[in-house]
Amino acid sequence: MSKNDASCGCGEFPLLQKIKNPAEVKELSKEQLVQLAEELRQCIINTVSKGGGHLAPSLGVIELTLALFSCFDLDKDRLVWDVGHQAYAHKILTGRYENFHTLRQKDGISGFPRMAENSYDHFGVGHSSTSISAALGMAFASDIEGDGRNCVAVIGDGSMTAGQAFEGLNQAGGMKRKMVVVLNDNEMSISTNVGALSAYLSRKLSHPVMNRFKKDFESLLKQIPKIGDDLAMYAKRGEDSFKSFFTPGMLFESLDFTYLGPIDGHNLQELIDVFEQVKKIDSPVLVHVLTTKGKGYTPAEDNPTYFHGVGSFEPETGRAKKFKGGLPSYTEVFGKTLCKLAEKDDKIVAITAAMPEGTGTSPFREQFPERFVDVGICEQHAVTFAAGLATMGYKPAVAIYSTFLQRSYDQVVHDVCLQNLNVNFFLDRGGLVGADGATHHGVFDISFLRHIPNIVCMAPKDEAELARMIATAIDYDGPAAVRYPRGVGIGTILEENPRILEIGEGELLRDGFDGVIITVGSRVWPAIEAVEELDEEFGKAVAVFNTRFIKPLPEKQILELASRFKKILIVEENAKAGGFSSAVIEILVDNNAIDGHEIKRLGIPDEFIEHGTQQELRGELGIDKNGMKKSMLELLSK
Amino acid sequence: MSKNDASCGCGEFPLLQKIKNPAEVKELSKEQLVQLAEELRQCIINTVSKGGGHLAPSLGVIELTLALFSCFDLDKDRLVWDVGHQAYAHKILTGRYENFHTLRQKDGISGFPRMAENSYDHFGVGHSSTSISAALGMAFASDIEGDGRNCVAVIGDGSMTAGQAFEGLNQAGGMKRKMVVVLNDNEMSISTNVGALSAYLSRKLSHPVMNRFKKDFESLLKQIPKIGDDLAMYAKRGEDSFKSFFTPGMLFESLDFTYLGPIDGHNLQELIDVFEQVKKIDSPVLVHVLTTKGKGYTPAEDNPTYFHGVGSFEPETGRAKKFKGGLPSYTEVFGKTLCKLAEKDDKIVAITAAMPEGTGTSPFREQFPERFVDVGICEQHAVTFAAGLATMGYKPAVAIYSTFLQRSYDQVVHDVCLQNLNVNFFLDRGGLVGADGATHHGVFDISFLRHIPNIVCMAPKDEAELARMIATAIDYDGPAAVRYPRGVGIGTILEENPRILEIGEGELLRDGFDGVIITVGSRVWPAIEAVEELDEEFGKAVAVFNTRFIKPLPEKQILELASRFKKILIVEENAKAGGFSSAVIEILVDNNAIDGHEIKRLGIPDEFIEHGTQQELRGELGIDKNGMKKSMLELLSK
Repeated sequence: MSKNDASCGCGEFPLLQKIKNPAEVKELSKEQLVQLAEELRQCIINTVSKGGGHLAPSLGVIELTLALFSCFDLDKDRLVWDVGHQAYAHKILTGRYENFHTLRQKDGISGFPRMAENSYDHFGVGHSSTSISAALGMAFASDIEGDGRNCVAVIGDGSMTAGQAFEGLNQAGGMKRKMVVVLNDNEMSISTNVGALSAYLSRKLSHPVMNRFKKDFESLLKQIPKIGDDLAMYAKRGEDSFKSFFTPGMLFESLDFTYLGPIDGHNLQELIDVFEQVKKIDSPVLVHVLTTKGKGYTPAEDNPTYFHGVGSFEPETGRAKKFKGGLPSYTEVFGKTLCKLAEKDDKIVAITAAMPEGTGTSPFREQFPERFVDVGICEQHAVTFAAGLATMGYKPAVAIYSTFLQRSYDQVVHDVCLQNLNVNFFLDRGGLVGADGATHHGVFDISFLRHIPNIVCMAPKDEAELARMIATAIDYDGPAAVRYPRGVGIGTILEENPRILEIGEGELLRDGFDGVIITVGSRVWPAIEAVEELDEEFGKAVAVFNTRFIKPLPEKQILELASRFKKILIVEENAKAGGFSSAVIEILVDNNAIDGHEIKRLGIPDEFIEHGTQQELRGELGIDKNGMKKSMLELLSK
Repeated sequence: MSKNDASCGCGEFPLLQKIKNPAEVKELSKEQLVQLAEELRQCIINTVSKGGGHLAPSLGVIELTLALFSCFDLDKDRLVWDVGHQAYAHKILTGRYENFHTLRQKDGISGFPRMAENSYDHFGVGHSSTSISAALGMAFASDIEGDGRNCVAVIGDGSMTAGQAFEGLNQAGGMKRKMVVVLNDNEMSISTNVGALSAYLSRKLSHPVMNRFKKDFESLLKQIPKIGDDLAMYAKRGEDSFKSFFTPGMLFESLDFTYLGPIDGHNLQELIDVFEQVKKIDSPVLVHVLTTKGKGYTPAEDNPTYFHGVGSFEPETGRAKKFKGGLPSYTEVFGKTLCKLAEKDDKIVAITAAMPEGTGTSPFREQFPERFVDVGICEQHAVTFAAGLATMGYKPAVAIYSTFLQRSYDQVVHDVCLQNLNVNFFLDRGGLVGADGATHHGVFDISFLRHIPNIVCMAPKDEAELARMIATAIDYDGPAAVRYPRGVGIGTILEENPRILEIGEGELLRDGFDGVIITVGSRVWPAIEAVEELDEEFGKAVAVFNTRFIKPLPEKQILELASRFKKILIVEENAKAGGFSSAVIEILVDNNAIDGHEIKRLGIPDEFIEHGTQQELRGELGIDKNGMKKSMLELLSK
């Protein structure tokens, strides 16, 4: 292994290893840039093949990244990547080449741009459609300072469907300040794109027809007397306006953006020419760039959805290295169970926000296409749309990752819970998600849901209980949420007809004398393991109570436990502030049942948790089996 | 006073009193409809002049309401009013005429459509831009059922700038399902409209120029051989496309809506003709209606911002009945203090989401126009835009009502707090707001903010403390939020240079022996009054501790109090679930300091609170002076 190979851990890249900061990209010749693109591509493929990551998005923007780095001055200008899962080339070229092999590993490089990680990460991202707003804020500041910075947002066509992107565009157009939006159009978001905007963007006219018509149109324009301000203005804009009349430009021009495009996003020269032109424009510009997701790596080009975010694979073939074991993921169990219930209940409608694969709803789409809705990256709309459906007697199942439901907090409060509608939320990735890190952990959902009146919140201990909770949520005539972790279950057998649970009833899984662990969801089985070891190793008899419900909590059962046990350990995979353990102690206080107890709460402390494997993070935070054991022992020794 | 007059309490309206349900509107002649419009107008003016309400929006859509009721069948079709502050005519015509005099009063008619209030309120509203999503959900359901209902969303041009409206439009266009969006364009939202969309909508061409150009264009079209599918399609659409090329239609047509308009929103016949046509279209339609806010009432037409939401006034002149007393509102104190700080600190930028008047930032706009941004009804964008500004060393002051910040929860977590940026939130209307009711109470902010890492949260006991907290938030180099109540202060003198508070330091306002009230914000002075009466009437010495900070709580001080007092009453004007009192008991539990105490928590119970005056509601919930007194007495008598 050569020295170079050792430094990056993924191959020999003579140009890459020389680039220490973005400015050095500017000094490369065209030929070197082409070579650099090739090296970046290979470095990214090699690295992601080992530890997984967002491969296809990052491969799609390599030339775009090089063109941006060539034309803009990243020490002065500002560059905001939307979502940020396409920023691997950016990371490598900003001094992180040597550490790139630690991508998404604990204490390694984050999978997303982060201000705290590198000064060229001008804005931290992870959730979609924030880039235009952030870049406009920067442009506004630059305008006050009068320092003439270019502020650039790079946003995908999928992210463009989210309302916030429109809010940003609308404000930017209205402000008329210098700023650049690069629309990275690969005709798909994570999955196939949806909505009118997508159809609009892909409306392409053949060149010959356009050119011919354009000629006629121009001659017409010359014949018309220029009467009226608007018409004169229109005529002056002649050619551009004509072009945009038939292309996506019109939409953006109507929001007062100058539109340039569409441009081949893999043609470095064309990109550089356009960005050089863009720098001279002193108003909002939208550059429409067409790219291919997974570009340059055939397996990813062929299957961009699979390679959007992928686990480890053989770089030569693209085949997954580790095939999944026999245990089904919670995602799969959810998808399967929902289909089963929908076979018997034609009022169930499944809703996803651009993630049919990620949420496990794609089997539902196959089986019940007429009752399946992919709203695009529009979590707000998804929830209110579901509320509208529920007013008509339907039972929508809204499948959104815990972290993304943060986008719909107001809609959950205002449109669903206030009206007490039968909308059901299925929150995958509740708890720590692992390698995606701080922007993606679902560790706030219990805190932001449990204070909303009317909603029923549950978390299953295993896949069989998940199935029961899905059935319970659908059956319950009001808002309900089920949050479950990323990953596979423990192998419990699913019931043919999942039992409807009694709302607010928990289960004492193991009785004891010395103390009790009160917990829910992913922490239940580790708690059982912990008390088993406490029994075997220390002869302590500790009870384990699974509340099943976070709201309403099994109040009576909890009070009964409190009357029997002095030592109470409360464990959750959520922020302790305002979370599950907080709810349990509220009950104890409000019922004058807290006196005489020793209580310890385990959960996510009041800080953002970085990336790492779920196991590593749970261990570090003391919410795994060992952590519970240790904490319970401490309680018992007092 | 005649019998009729008695039934409605606001005048004699012979036609109005006959209309018991919407279907009866269909049977009226054109002349009767005109008379009905006049009666509605007068009834609304009279009623609102007595108790206040959303006058100008409701006056603007009287003809529109009558046309919708004439053309659609509200027993089958679905009608969703966006925001709902324009729905007074709708309320009166759906069986609520006789109770309309109870508008916005406790146990009276809500100021917004509510499903629980009336079966013709097909969707409850209050926050903006949800109507398209909800109506599309209904249309989707109707499509599955095959029952051919018309689903209509009526949305203002201001609400149209919010991202969720765009999400709804995009999805509706993509789905191509039958649904109707009525764009009620009065060229303003609550305040003057902002953004490119607004400029776009108001781009109007004089008819002669358009007609002349159109003729030439059409003849050109005839000369061009129809080559290629796209061109053929284009040519076929000929006239419509041409029109929309110059009008707002193009924007909506690019999202696959059929565009009809602009239409005079006060011309009943024209409206009815268009809606009759609309019913026959089996795809998404957007009807662009031009209305005048406050139509038919000169004072409101002249000053629509003032009459948007107004207190009681003399109907003859429009003059306010009650002039404000000498005490300044929290809103005013905020605006004034921010200006003062900005005089010395040129990094302060004020941001409002379409509410410069409501948030008190209009003086800032006057004084520092270059550092003032009104983003429109775009709370999400506002927060991320502020985050972008903060990355450049600015200190944005984001002034948003507590209830509307619910829209930006994800942005507060993801863009501001995760990056620990110096973005400052000023949340007016924190706590119970009174007549606007359930959709507008700001009773969740403590619960949805305090679990977010890095943020500092405060609530002032009076206006002098508000000024200090504003200075403290701006000074603190990280995210901060100050929530303060609707209404006036108590008359404290503002410091010339408001003191910067020590982060996480509370104040013992009154010491005692028998117990302690721990509270914050609006509940502090009532607590003082309560303990004064407990002293005078019962000889009890109860301490009052103002935590000032909700996050971080003054932990050391609270623990010290807990070591001295057995009886603790914790009071907040926020949901008790996960709120302030919940945070206090977390501290006691986590520090093993809860044992041996009797604790009672007062706050908003786990239910949505309806409208009523602030005083009435606080009394009913037992969080006013009397409630605290009673609860403390109970604690003391144990």
